[in-house]
Amino acid sequence: MRKLRMGMVGGGLDSFMGDVHRKASGLDGMIELVCGAFNSTVEKTKQTGKALFLPEDRCYGSFQEMILKEKELPEGDRMDFVTIVTPNHLHFEPAKMALENGFHVVCDKPMTLTVNEAKILEKLVNETGLLFALTHNYTGNAMVKQAQAMVAKGALGEILKVQVQYLQGWMAEEEEEKEAKIKPWRADPKKSGIGGSLADIGTHAENLVSYITGAEITELAADLGRIGKNRVLDNDGNLLLRMSNGAKGTMSISQMAVGEENALIVKVYGSKGSLEWNQEDSTKLITKWIDKPQQTFTPDGNDIYEEVRAISRIPKGHPEGYLEAFANIYRGFAKHLMSVINNDPIEKPDYPSVAEGVRGVQFIYAAVESDKQNASWVKLDSF
Amino acid sequence: MRKLRMGMVGGGLDSFMGDVHRKASGLDGMIELVCGAFNSTVEKTKQTGKALFLPEDRCYGSFQEMILKEKELPEGDRMDFVTIVTPNHLHFEPAKMALENGFHVVCDKPMTLTVNEAKILEKLVNETGLLFALTHNYTGNAMVKQAQAMVAKGALGEILKVQVQYLQGWMAEEEEEKEAKIKPWRADPKKSGIGGSLADIGTHAENLVSYITGAEITELAADLGRIGKNRVLDNDGNLLLRMSNGAKGTMSISQMAVGEENALIVKVYGSKGSLEWNQEDSTKLITKWIDKPQQTFTPDGNDIYEEVRAISRIPKGHPEGYLEAFANIYRGFAKHLMSVINNDPIEKPDYPSVAEGVRGVQFIYAAVESDKQNASWVKLDSF
Amino acid sequence: MRKLRMGMVGGGLDSFMGDVHRKASGLDGMIELVCGAFNSTVEKTKQTGKALFLPEDRCYGSFQEMILKEKELPEGDRMDFVTIVTPNHLHFEPAKMALENGFHVVCDKPMTLTVNEAKILEKLVNETGLLFALTHNYTGNAMVKQAQAMVAKGALGEILKVQVQYLQGWMAEEEEEKEAKIKPWRADPKKSGIGGSLADIGTHAENLVSYITGAEITELAADLGRIGKNRVLDNDGNLLLRMSNGAKGTMSISQMAVGEENALIVKVYGSKGSLEWNQEDSTKLITKWIDKPQQTFTPDGNDIYEEVRAISRIPKGHPEGYLEAFANIYRGFAKHLMSVINNDPIEKPDYPSVAEGVRGVQFIYAAVESDKQNASWVKLDSF
Amino acid sequence: MRKLRMGMVGGGLDSFMGDVHRKASGLDGMIELVCGAFNSTVEKTKQTGKALFLPEDRCYGSFQEMILKEKELPEGDRMDFVTIVTPNHLHFEPAKMALENGFHVVCDKPMTLTVNEAKILEKLVNETGLLFALTHNYTGNAMVKQAQAMVAKGALGEILKVQVQYLQGWMAEEEEEKEAKIKPWRADPKKSGIGGSLADIGTHAENLVSYITGAEITELAADLGRIGKNRVLDNDGNLLLRMSNGAKGTMSISQMAVGEENALIVKVYGSKGSLEWNQEDSTKLITKWIDKPQQTFTPDGNDIYEEVRAISRIPKGHPEGYLEAFANIYRGFAKHLMSVINNDPIEKPDYPSVAEGVRGVQFIYAAVESDKQNASWVKLDSF
Repeated sequence: MRKLRMGMVGGGLDSFMGDVHRKASGLDGMIELVCGAFNSTVEKTKQTGKALFLPEDRCYGSFQEMILKEKELPEGDRMDFVTIVTPNHLHFEPAKMALENGFHVVCDKPMTLTVNEAKILEKLVNETGLLFALTHNYTGNAMVKQAQAMVAKGALGEILKVQVQYLQGWMAEEEEEKEAKIKPWRADPKKSGIGGSLADIGTHAENLVSYITGAEITELAADLGRIGKNRVLDNDGNLLLRMSNGAKGTMSISQMAVGEENALIVKVYGSKGSLEWNQEDSTKLITKWIDKPQQTFTPDGNDIYEEVRAISRIPKGHPEGYLEAFANIYRGFAKHLMSVINNDPIEKPDYPSVAEGVRGVQFIYAAVESDKQNASWVKLDSF
Repeated sequence: MRKLRMGMVGGGLDSFMGDVHRKASGLDGMIELVCGAFNSTVEKTKQTGKALFLPEDRCYGSFQEMILKEKELPEGDRMDFVTIVTPNHLHFEPAKMALENGFHVVCDKPMTLTVNEAKILEKLVNETGLLFALTHNYTGNAMVKQAQAMVAKGALGEILKVQVQYLQGWMAEEEEEKEAKIKPWRADPKKSGIGGSLADIGTHAENLVSYITGAEITELAADLGRIGKNRVLDNDGNLLLRMSNGAKGTMSISQMAVGEENALIVKVYGSKGSLEWNQEDSTKLITKWIDKPQQTFTPDGNDIYEEVRAISRIPKGHPEGYLEAFANIYRGFAKHLMSVINNDPIEKPDYPSVAEGVRGVQFIYAAVESDKQNASWVKLDSF
Repeated sequence: MRKLRMGMVGGGLDSFMGDVHRKASGLDGMIELVCGAFNSTVEKTKQTGKALFLPEDRCYGSFQEMILKEKELPEGDRMDFVTIVTPNHLHFEPAKMALENGFHVVCDKPMTLTVNEAKILEKLVNETGLLFALTHNYTGNAMVKQAQAMVAKGALGEILKVQVQYLQGWMAEEEEEKEAKIKPWRADPKKSGIGGSLADIGTHAENLVSYITGAEITELAADLGRIGKNRVLDNDGNLLLRMSNGAKGTMSISQMAVGEENALIVKVYGSKGSLEWNQEDSTKLITKWIDKPQQTFTPDGNDIYEEVRAISRIPKGHPEGYLEAFANIYRGFAKHLMSVINNDPIEKPDYPSVAEGVRGVQFIYAAVESDKQNASWVKLDSF
Repeated sequence: MRKLRMGMVGGGLDSFMGDVHRKASGLDGMIELVCGAFNSTVEKTKQTGKALFLPEDRCYGSFQEMILKEKELPEGDRMDFVTIVTPNHLHFEPAKMALENGFHVVCDKPMTLTVNEAKILEKLVNETGLLFALTHNYTGNAMVKQAQAMVAKGALGEILKVQVQYLQGWMAEEEEEKEAKIKPWRADPKKSGIGGSLADIGTHAENLVSYITGAEITELAADLGRIGKNRVLDNDGNLLLRMSNGAKGTMSISQMAVGEENALIVKVYGSKGSLEWNQEDSTKLITKWIDKPQQTFTPDGNDIYEEVRAISRIPKGHPEGYLEAFANIYRGFAKHLMSVINNDPIEKPDYPSVAEGVRGVQFIYAAVESDKQNASWVKLDSF
């Protein structure tokens, strides 16, 4: 076997997410970056490429050029897949063009600006049979996998209630310039879409609670906030949730929650037990039971399911973090793609894909619509 | 000065809350129990009285008898106030009669079954000038006082968002009989009122968030659950909140949250900082700031406000718990009453009173009404 | 049955420990304070008595007077036992005289200044058959009882290793005057004995580790610190421990550990499992296992031994604290004494007694001697 | 600039540490693996090389062959440095030979089996001016850097007391075969040296406490345990420490501490404040102060020193773990080496080097000697 060859759209030198995707994709030695259309100009892209030790002739002036030129390269050289790490409004076009030209795709979330675009991608993926991964990285955490497996195996009984929060405070920071490089487009509807925090962090919360419970949010009621002057998009939200398994719950999101760093916490309550996972303390899964003392599970610790144990790269007590969880999305995608290339039997793929991407955009649309209607119930499937 | 003399309505030997009120009222040596109408029969009441070393002639067959006979005793003997620790449906009548006969009142929550009853008590208290304490015991915690004071002094800036949960799991327990003594009336609308968990724990959550923020919940949207067979009253709830200070938020309550013990947690977010208090870890107040590292405050620890420091009975690092917080309600009431009796100048009373009681019942009514209307917004003042 | 009658030696109005003993002894309604020799002068003692609503004729000028006069009272009036809450150097004489005059004794720790005095009391207790309780209050915590029972029942297997720390920072505080009322005698060898922090907190650590493991410290090596100017007694210590069950371990104590409040933490490692208890988080017992996930036990929670469950006064999730644990020592003593008075069958007493008192003083002596010999091993039995 | 070229000694496919070193060295895109002598036979080494996508002609049969053949390659091709990830007894020879042939060295800990070997390497490094990094990876954590900087800047005042533990339980595990691949040589004196747990984890504890406090352990008293049948080397230890800054302390280490995963915890007490860091919760630094509430510092959080903030690769609230800390050692080494190669000005190197390696072996020797002498004090400089 050989390493998989990756082409990157977006992710210039000063891009936080570009660096994350490069480190995460490279961690397991299964993927190498071979080309890119990193920046808005070919000059900048070449600077980025040079810093990444890429040959100049594979630093392209646009994603269109990259896709077309790579397609012309011999099979042994050309990229296997495109990874898209641009702001939200620049996901759809490169993803669509990549799929149309036979390239597999990894794409950051939210998948697209509109539900219509999302459904176009879904149709393309289904028609072409190409692989598509959406980097909802938090589902890559070993303890999230353990939580998902516990629910799926029935350990918690019937799921009755959920509580999820995703709170950050950085949009309220006084030294705005500190974060300036990642802020501006997130407050601009043209680039972020109709959702602000909904798109940026709400979709993570939506995806996480669905992944763990194995159920979809069917309808929601959303009371959004646009805190501060001249704020167009939501930066705060309080939601009621109803899920396809009959569970009910709340969601609290904010990027104005002063003092919070990246406080994504999910609690799930079933008829036999409950669980809690906190992203900032990601190597613990707290479980509580109707008939046993509270148990804390750890990656590679006692009683971890074997398929979850296999996710960790290092022995128990040695923390893995955000990058390793992110790398698990890439590893799941890479294993799948290698099997496809080698005509090996396909194990059940374990990474978020295009259907989750559609659901995420529907979530944004439903929440914005509900908020317009004074937090009335809105169904996600109505979009 | 002498000890204050207390007469108790309810609280027979097998009553959990009776014991709590006796220990809490006695802790500081300011109050002594002198008489009671503890049980439904005079025989049982006398058994309770004997176990409490009370004289038999002050063990009364009913609260009516107690109030009338005590009224006839000379001033140096008769009780100063009545404490009411019965199930919800037996709060209103003894409270009303006590007030009408010149006795001060301490009453457990929720204050009454109906808003109408609540307003009658409020009117009586205002007209008579008698003292009335409602035992929302969680506001007696030192760290809750610190939180309240921090908000009041502006340390957190403008309050923007709240998140409150009160989760218990005992109603889902398999060995139902274990808790049988406190369960039955809580599931019976005639004794509990129109709210189930709303009344039992929701009112605590409502009171706590209002106490800390200094603001009222003005309207709410409630999606309630009645989990299990033949369940009439709510035992689960998910709510959206809008507050008088403009803040928005969520409330999650349940008595079917398997594995949770008494998980009352409140988070308050302001423009400069935020705070979090967890009843099960009650001696810590976690604060996070826009411009400082996270700080953890402890009773009697560094930078605690002096009025809060005075609440603790023991030095820092020596935990106080539920009973001590409960005792703080009684101590606040006792200090107030002693000042009244001695014609001393009155310091600002520091305990929940009849207005908080009215608000709690309005909260129950609004939530039940909202739930009927599929979680539409309902104003508390509409009741 | 009637309440037990208690006479107090020490514990004037400005004494922190006097107040603790009064609240703890009164919490369960089994004990009433009937007399006292609280202060160094009869005038002050009468002021204390008045504040406590005691009759003036039972406020005595000295413990000698109290013991002799109470002895003359009719059986139905006179005190049943003496509680001694004075500084260390004033434990021995009142305890001895009380025992010699037929009174049971509760005494604060360390029991005496010297091993010789301790053995005299032990002999007296054994000869008279009178009851004696030493208020090592931390062993009154429900989770400490659970820990003790888990070790005793073999749940942890063979005990191999212990780690105990008791760290406070208040002696280092800048505002020394704040704590002035409890500090001075603790730094004075005439009043504290040959040990400083060893006596004040080290004996608690020694007692706790012995109680939980069911084993004694047989020998130790101590490297003590006397931090600061003109410091005569130890205020810091680092010790190696060897125990009667073959376990080895470390002890770290200090009252100069800036920032620590009352950080008494014990960890016990056995061949099958381990446990950790932290006094500042006293309602959790953390256990870790060779073949199971980490479990957290809570008072009244799942899988708590029934004898431990019975210790809690309130349901799960409602924290009990320092006073309740302290009250458990008094309750254990009171139950024992009531059984004796009523000629009821005696259950196994559950409180620290005179033997633990002797051991504590031997611990102090051994540590001071070891430190003189540059941390050589010293056996506790050599004193 | 180009990537640095690394040759690896040890680290065959089934080696846990080989994989860690490869991931850590590769994370930042500054280092590429170009050759190796991974296994005991050239066949196995070639298998490893193939899996790592290495050309077969740079998979060598021995470290000797690798060093000599690489030396012959043109400057633009040959490796820049050797990384040594073999068991303890195979550190010295390849390190010595690499230095003698002009290659820089990265070496796992403990540096050598004997103090004599350690001093030979130290002399070689000093004479040749070649770079040498010892992978005491825990000092690569951002919060350890913050702790070190706080002490160095005087924030804690004079350092008075330390407490360090490093506890693992895996040697006690029932399913020994599970960990068989990393266990055997660690229990064999010929391969591990005279120290067992002392070498494996004790040196990490020693290095960590010295790094944070900026002081050396000058003498120690050690009471070691060899728990289990036929155990030759220590697997448990309890130590007293005296440090060059006058501080005293304890160290507790074990690999038989059932239930512990990788519990490396250090507490440092100064005259103004104290700090605590727990490797299993590595993104928090808890600080306590004489005059302020407890503060919790986080990577990239408020009030982090700028030089510490620069260490994190991702924004606040996104956890980094063991691999990232390990990668920081490689990054520090790589930056230094790149500056040397480019003749750039050298910033103060920030990674453990050969002097720390000597100290670690002295620590092992002193502890073993002290234990032989019944835990008498032994100076590290006596070896």
